[in-house]
Amino acid sequence: MSNQTDTAGTTVLRTPSDREIVSERVFDAPRERVFALYTDPQQIPRWWGPRRMTTTVEEMDVRPGGAWRFLAREPDGEEIGFRGVYREVIPPERIVQTFEWEGMPGHVVVETATFEDLDGSTKVTTTSLFHTTEERDGMLASGMERGLTETHDRLAELLAR
Amino acid sequence: MSNQTDTAGTTVLRTPSDREIVSERVFDAPRERVFALYTDPQQIPRWWGPRRMTTTVEEMDVRPGGAWRFLAREPDGEEIGFRGVYREVIPPERIVQTFEWEGMPGHVVVETATFEDLDGSTKVTTTSLFHTTEERDGMLASGMERGLTETHDRLAELLAR
Repeated sequence: MSNQTDTAGTTVLRTPSDREIVSERVFDAPRERVFALYTDPQQIPRWWGPRRMTTTVEEMDVRPGGAWRFLAREPDGEEIGFRGVYREVIPPERIVQTFEWEGMPGHVVVETATFEDLDGSTKVTTTSLFHTTEERDGMLASGMERGLTETHDRLAELLAR
Repeated sequence: MSNQTDTAGTTVLRTPSDREIVSERVFDAPRERVFALYTDPQQIPRWWGPRRMTTTVEEMDVRPGGAWRFLAREPDGEEIGFRGVYREVIPPERIVQTFEWEGMPGHVVVETATFEDLDGSTKVTTTSLFHTTEERDGMLASGMERGLTETHDRLAELLAR
Protein backbone atom coordinates (compact mmCIF):
# COMPACT_ATOMS: atom_id res chain seq x y z
CA MET A 1 0.00 0.00 0.00
CA SER A 2 1.18 3.52 -0.76
CA ASN A 3 1.39 6.25 1.83
CA GLN A 4 -1.57 7.81 0.07
CA THR A 5 -3.72 5.07 1.59
CA ASP A 6 -3.34 6.54 5.04
CA THR A 7 -3.89 10.13 4.02
CA ALA A 8 -7.18 11.59 5.23
CA GLY A 9 -9.20 13.12 2.43
CA THR A 10 -8.33 10.80 -0.44
CA THR A 11 -10.42 7.88 -1.63
CA VAL A 12 -8.17 5.17 -3.07
CA LEU A 13 -9.54 2.37 -5.25
CA ARG A 14 -7.76 -0.94 -5.89
CA THR A 15 -8.67 -4.12 -7.79
CA PRO A 16 -6.79 -6.84 -5.87
CA SER A 17 -8.53 -9.67 -7.76
CA ASP A 18 -10.57 -9.96 -10.97
CA ARG A 19 -13.91 -9.81 -9.11
CA GLU A 20 -13.24 -7.19 -6.45
CA ILE A 21 -13.03 -3.46 -5.99
CA VAL A 22 -11.51 -2.23 -2.73
CA SER A 23 -11.81 1.37 -1.58
CA GLU A 24 -10.02 2.99 1.33
CA ARG A 25 -10.63 6.34 2.95
CA VAL A 26 -9.48 7.80 6.23
CA PHE A 27 -11.89 10.07 8.10
CA ASP A 28 -10.76 12.46 10.81
CA ALA A 29 -13.28 11.23 13.41
CA PRO A 30 -13.66 8.36 15.90
CA ARG A 31 -14.99 5.17 14.40
CA GLU A 32 -18.11 5.13 16.61
CA ARG A 33 -19.15 8.41 14.94
CA VAL A 34 -18.33 7.17 11.45
CA PHE A 35 -20.15 3.88 12.03
CA ALA A 36 -23.17 5.78 13.38
CA LEU A 37 -23.45 7.82 10.17
CA TYR A 38 -23.30 4.64 8.06
CA THR A 39 -26.17 3.07 9.99
CA ASP A 40 -28.53 5.98 10.76
CA PRO A 41 -31.41 6.38 8.25
CA GLN A 42 -31.83 10.03 9.32
CA GLN A 43 -28.25 10.82 8.30
CA ILE A 44 -28.07 8.95 4.95
CA PRO A 45 -29.71 11.77 2.89
CA ARG A 46 -27.02 14.17 4.20
CA TRP A 47 -24.07 12.28 2.68
CA TRP A 48 -25.01 9.23 0.54
CA GLY A 49 -24.60 9.63 -3.22
CA PRO A 50 -23.31 12.37 -5.53
CA ARG A 51 -24.04 15.98 -4.54
CA ARG A 52 -26.40 16.57 -7.48
CA MET A 53 -28.78 13.85 -6.28
CA THR A 54 -31.38 13.90 -3.55
CA THR A 55 -31.41 10.62 -1.67
CA THR A 56 -34.36 9.37 0.34
CA VAL A 57 -34.36 6.28 2.54
CA GLU A 58 -37.34 4.07 1.69
CA GLU A 59 -36.30 1.24 4.00
CA MET A 60 -33.27 0.67 6.24
CA ASP A 61 -33.49 -2.14 8.75
CA VAL A 62 -29.90 -2.36 9.99
CA ARG A 63 -29.65 -5.94 11.30
CA PRO A 64 -28.73 -9.30 9.78
CA GLY A 65 -31.43 -10.14 7.23
CA GLY A 66 -32.86 -6.62 7.24
CA ALA A 67 -33.55 -4.86 3.95
CA TRP A 68 -32.48 -1.43 2.74
CA ARG A 69 -33.69 0.63 -0.19
CA PHE A 70 -32.64 4.15 -1.19
CA LEU A 71 -34.11 6.32 -3.95
CA ALA A 72 -31.74 8.84 -5.54
CA ARG A 73 -33.39 11.62 -7.54
CA GLU A 74 -31.55 13.34 -10.39
CA PRO A 75 -32.05 17.09 -10.87
CA ASP A 76 -34.38 16.31 -13.83
CA GLY A 77 -36.61 14.26 -11.51
CA GLU A 78 -35.52 10.81 -12.64
CA GLU A 79 -35.42 8.38 -9.73
CA ILE A 80 -32.85 5.63 -9.37
CA GLY A 81 -33.37 2.83 -6.87
CA PHE A 82 -30.72 0.94 -4.93
CA ARG A 83 -31.41 -1.95 -2.58
CA GLY A 84 -29.98 -4.86 -0.69
CA VAL A 85 -29.99 -6.72 2.61
CA TYR A 86 -27.66 -6.63 5.59
CA ARG A 87 -25.78 -9.87 6.20
CA GLU A 88 -23.63 -8.83 9.18
CA VAL A 89 -23.71 -5.78 11.43
CA ILE A 90 -20.97 -5.65 14.09
CA PRO A 91 -20.77 -2.17 15.68
CA PRO A 92 -18.50 -0.32 15.31
CA GLU A 93 -16.31 -2.65 13.25
CA ARG A 94 -17.94 -4.25 10.29
CA ILE A 95 -20.99 -4.26 7.98
CA VAL A 96 -21.62 -6.83 5.25
CA GLN A 97 -24.52 -6.06 2.93
CA THR A 98 -25.67 -6.70 -0.60
CA PHE A 99 -25.97 -3.91 -3.17
CA GLU A 100 -28.15 -3.97 -6.25
CA TRP A 101 -28.92 -1.17 -8.69
CA GLU A 102 -32.57 -1.55 -9.68
CA GLY A 103 -31.73 -0.63 -13.27
CA MET A 104 -29.93 -3.98 -13.51
CA PRO A 105 -32.00 -6.34 -11.34
CA GLY A 106 -30.35 -9.54 -10.19
CA HIS A 107 -26.80 -8.22 -10.48
CA VAL A 108 -25.93 -8.42 -6.81
CA VAL A 109 -22.72 -7.20 -5.20
CA VAL A 110 -21.54 -8.21 -1.71
CA GLU A 111 -20.08 -5.18 0.06
CA THR A 112 -17.98 -5.57 3.19
CA ALA A 113 -17.15 -2.37 5.07
CA THR A 114 -14.63 -2.40 7.91
CA PHE A 115 -13.98 0.48 10.30
CA GLU A 116 -10.47 0.62 11.73
CA ASP A 117 -9.45 2.86 14.60
CA LEU A 118 -6.27 4.82 13.76
CA ASP A 119 -5.61 6.69 17.01
CA GLY A 120 -8.81 8.66 16.83
CA SER A 121 -9.29 8.81 13.09
CA THR A 122 -10.98 5.99 11.17
CA LYS A 123 -10.00 4.03 8.09
CA VAL A 124 -13.02 2.73 6.21
CA THR A 125 -12.23 -0.09 3.80
CA THR A 126 -14.98 -1.40 1.52
CA THR A 127 -14.61 -4.55 -0.55
CA SER A 128 -17.15 -5.04 -3.34
CA LEU A 129 -17.32 -8.65 -4.54
CA PHE A 130 -19.01 -9.38 -7.90
CA HIS A 131 -20.15 -12.67 -9.44
CA THR A 132 -18.12 -11.96 -12.58
CA THR A 133 -15.29 -9.77 -13.84
CA GLU A 134 -17.69 -8.33 -16.43
CA GLU A 135 -19.99 -7.03 -13.70
CA ARG A 136 -17.01 -5.64 -11.78
CA ASP A 137 -15.72 -3.81 -14.85
CA GLY A 138 -19.22 -2.48 -15.58
CA MET A 139 -19.29 -0.92 -12.12
CA LEU A 140 -15.87 0.69 -12.65
CA ALA A 141 -16.97 2.03 -16.06
CA SER A 142 -20.13 3.53 -14.54
CA GLY A 143 -18.07 6.20 -12.77
CA MET A 144 -17.86 4.50 -9.38
CA GLU A 145 -14.60 6.21 -8.40
CA ARG A 146 -15.94 9.71 -8.90
CA GLY A 147 -19.26 8.90 -7.23
CA LEU A 148 -17.66 7.21 -4.24
CA THR A 149 -15.12 10.02 -3.77
CA GLU A 150 -17.95 12.55 -3.75
CA THR A 151 -19.90 10.46 -1.24
CA HIS A 152 -16.81 10.20 0.99
CA ASP A 153 -16.16 13.94 0.68
CA ARG A 154 -19.72 14.65 1.80
CA LEU A 155 -19.32 12.27 4.74
CA ALA A 156 -16.04 13.96 5.74
CA GLU A 157 -17.75 17.38 5.62
CA LEU A 158 -20.60 16.12 7.78
CA LEU A 159 -18.13 14.69 10.31
CA ALA A 160 -16.29 18.04 10.42
CA ARG A 161 -19.39 19.96 11.46
CA MET B 1 -18.68 -35.88 -20.30
CA SER B 2 -19.65 -39.46 -19.57
CA ASN B 3 -22.34 -41.35 -21.44
CA GLN B 4 -24.40 -41.05 -18.29
CA THR B 5 -24.85 -37.38 -19.12
CA ASP B 6 -27.09 -38.19 -22.05
CA THR B 7 -29.16 -40.83 -20.29
CA ALA B 8 -32.71 -39.76 -19.59
CA GLY B 9 -33.68 -40.21 -15.99
CA THR B 10 -30.40 -39.38 -14.26
CA THR B 11 -29.48 -36.04 -12.75
CA VAL B 12 -25.72 -35.50 -12.95
CA LEU B 13 -23.93 -32.86 -10.89
CA ARG B 14 -20.48 -31.44 -11.66
CA THR B 15 -18.28 -28.74 -10.12
CA PRO B 16 -16.27 -27.44 -13.09
CA SER B 17 -14.86 -24.49 -11.12
CA ASP B 18 -14.59 -23.57 -7.45
CA ARG B 19 -17.68 -21.34 -7.51
CA GLU B 20 -20.03 -23.35 -9.73
CA ILE B 21 -22.36 -26.32 -9.61
CA VAL B 22 -23.58 -27.66 -12.94
CA SER B 23 -26.48 -30.11 -13.23
CA GLU B 24 -27.57 -31.98 -16.32
CA ARG B 25 -30.73 -33.96 -16.92
CA VAL B 26 -32.36 -35.24 -20.09
CA PHE B 27 -36.15 -35.23 -20.27
CA ASP B 28 -38.08 -37.33 -22.77
CA ALA B 29 -40.17 -34.43 -24.09
CA PRO B 30 -39.81 -31.55 -26.60
CA ARG B 31 -38.08 -28.50 -25.18
CA GLU B 32 -41.11 -26.23 -25.73
CA ARG B 33 -43.01 -28.41 -23.25
CA VAL B 34 -40.14 -28.53 -20.77
CA PHE B 35 -39.61 -24.77 -21.00
CA ALA B 36 -43.35 -24.21 -20.50
CA LEU B 37 -43.33 -26.17 -17.23
CA TYR B 38 -40.36 -24.12 -15.98
CA THR B 39 -42.16 -20.85 -16.63
CA ASP B 40 -45.82 -21.55 -15.77
CA PRO B 41 -46.81 -20.54 -12.20
CA GLN B 42 -49.79 -22.96 -12.36
CA GLN B 43 -47.45 -25.89 -12.94
CA ILE B 44 -44.70 -25.11 -10.40
CA PRO B 45 -46.54 -26.66 -7.39
CA ARG B 46 -46.81 -29.92 -9.37
CA TRP B 47 -43.05 -30.47 -9.65
CA TRP B 48 -40.87 -27.90 -7.85
CA GLY B 49 -39.14 -29.09 -4.67
CA PRO B 50 -38.90 -32.38 -2.79
CA ARG B 51 -42.03 -34.59 -2.72
CA ARG B 52 -42.60 -34.09 1.01
CA MET B 53 -43.04 -30.36 0.58
CA THR B 54 -46.01 -28.36 -0.63
CA THR B 55 -44.89 -25.48 -2.82
CA THR B 56 -46.98 -22.39 -3.44
CA VAL B 57 -46.12 -19.61 -5.87
CA GLU B 58 -46.35 -16.23 -4.14
CA GLU B 59 -44.99 -14.28 -7.10
CA MET B 60 -43.67 -15.29 -10.52
CA ASP B 61 -43.24 -12.56 -13.08
CA VAL B 62 -41.31 -14.35 -15.83
CA ARG B 63 -39.59 -11.49 -17.68
CA PRO B 64 -36.27 -9.69 -17.30
CA GLY B 65 -36.36 -7.80 -13.99
CA GLY B 66 -39.44 -9.70 -12.79
CA ALA B 67 -39.46 -11.20 -9.31
CA TRP B 68 -40.31 -14.71 -8.17
CA ARG B 69 -41.02 -16.08 -4.70
CA PHE B 70 -42.01 -19.61 -3.72
CA LEU B 71 -43.05 -20.87 -0.29
CA ALA B 72 -42.28 -24.52 0.44
CA ARG B 73 -44.15 -26.02 3.40
CA GLU B 74 -42.71 -28.95 5.34
CA PRO B 75 -45.10 -31.68 6.61
CA ASP B 76 -44.83 -30.14 10.12
CA GLY B 77 -46.09 -26.81 8.76
CA GLU B 78 -42.77 -24.98 8.69
CA GLU B 79 -42.54 -22.65 5.68
CA ILE B 80 -39.35 -22.00 3.78
CA GLY B 81 -39.13 -19.08 1.37
CA PHE B 82 -37.11 -18.87 -1.83
CA ARG B 83 -36.88 -15.83 -4.06
CA GLY B 84 -35.04 -14.12 -6.85
CA VAL B 85 -35.40 -12.12 -10.03
CA TYR B 86 -35.27 -13.09 -13.69
CA ARG B 87 -32.35 -11.60 -15.59
CA GLU B 88 -32.91 -13.22 -19.01
CA VAL B 89 -35.84 -15.19 -20.44
CA ILE B 90 -35.32 -16.52 -23.99
CA PRO B 91 -38.01 -19.10 -24.92
CA PRO B 92 -37.46 -21.97 -25.29
CA GLU B 93 -33.70 -21.79 -24.84
CA ARG B 94 -32.47 -20.03 -21.77
CA ILE B 95 -33.41 -18.57 -18.40
CA VAL B 96 -31.04 -16.63 -16.14
CA GLN B 97 -32.36 -15.87 -12.67
CA THR B 98 -31.13 -15.26 -9.16
CA PHE B 99 -31.87 -17.68 -6.33
CA GLU B 100 -31.88 -16.83 -2.65
CA TRP B 101 -32.97 -18.94 0.32
CA GLU B 102 -34.70 -16.61 2.76
CA GLY B 103 -33.06 -18.43 5.67
CA MET B 104 -29.75 -16.94 4.54
CA PRO B 105 -30.65 -13.50 3.16
CA GLY B 106 -28.16 -11.81 0.88
CA HIS B 107 -26.48 -15.02 -0.24
CA VAL B 108 -27.45 -14.79 -3.88
CA VAL B 109 -26.81 -17.42 -6.54
CA VAL B 110 -27.01 -16.76 -10.29
CA GLU B 111 -28.68 -19.72 -12.01
CA THR B 112 -28.48 -20.17 -15.76
CA ALA B 113 -30.71 -22.86 -17.27
CA THR B 114 -30.32 -23.88 -20.90
CA PHE B 115 -32.72 -26.13 -22.82
CA GLU B 116 -31.15 -28.12 -25.64
CA ASP B 117 -33.14 -30.03 -28.27
CA LEU B 118 -31.83 -33.62 -28.65
CA ASP B 119 -34.01 -34.91 -31.50
CA GLY B 120 -37.22 -34.55 -29.55
CA SER B 121 -35.94 -35.00 -26.03
CA THR B 122 -34.48 -32.11 -24.04
CA LYS B 123 -31.27 -31.67 -22.09
CA VAL B 124 -31.60 -29.14 -19.29
CA THR B 125 -28.28 -27.82 -18.00
CA THR B 126 -28.27 -25.51 -14.97
CA THR B 127 -25.20 -23.62 -13.84
CA SER B 128 -25.30 -22.15 -10.33
CA LEU B 129 -22.70 -19.44 -9.80
CA PHE B 130 -21.85 -18.41 -6.22
CA HIS B 131 -19.90 -15.41 -4.89
CA THR B 132 -17.57 -17.71 -2.93
CA THR B 133 -16.47 -21.34 -2.76
CA GLU B 134 -17.73 -21.43 0.84
CA GLU B 135 -21.28 -20.61 -0.28
CA ARG B 136 -21.04 -23.18 -3.10
CA ASP B 137 -19.92 -25.89 -0.68
CA GLY B 138 -22.68 -24.94 1.76
CA MET B 139 -25.24 -25.53 -1.00
CA LEU B 140 -23.74 -28.95 -1.80
CA ALA B 141 -23.73 -29.88 1.91
CA SER B 142 -27.41 -28.91 2.24
CA GLY B 143 -28.45 -31.94 0.19
CA MET B 144 -28.82 -30.18 -3.14
CA GLU B 145 -28.14 -33.31 -5.20
CA ARG B 146 -30.92 -35.33 -3.58
CA GLY B 147 -33.36 -32.42 -3.69
CA LEU B 148 -32.64 -31.58 -7.30
CA THR B 149 -32.88 -35.21 -8.40
CA GLU B 150 -36.28 -35.47 -6.74
CA THR B 151 -37.43 -32.25 -8.40
CA HIS B 152 -36.25 -33.55 -11.79
CA ASP B 153 -37.96 -36.91 -11.19
CA ARG B 154 -41.23 -35.13 -10.46
CA LEU B 155 -40.84 -33.01 -13.60
CA ALA B 156 -40.19 -36.16 -15.69
CA GLU B 157 -43.31 -37.80 -14.25
CA LEU B 158 -45.40 -34.75 -15.07
CA LEU B 159 -44.06 -34.71 -18.64
CA ALA B 160 -44.89 -38.42 -19.02
CA ARG B 161 -48.59 -37.92 -18.19
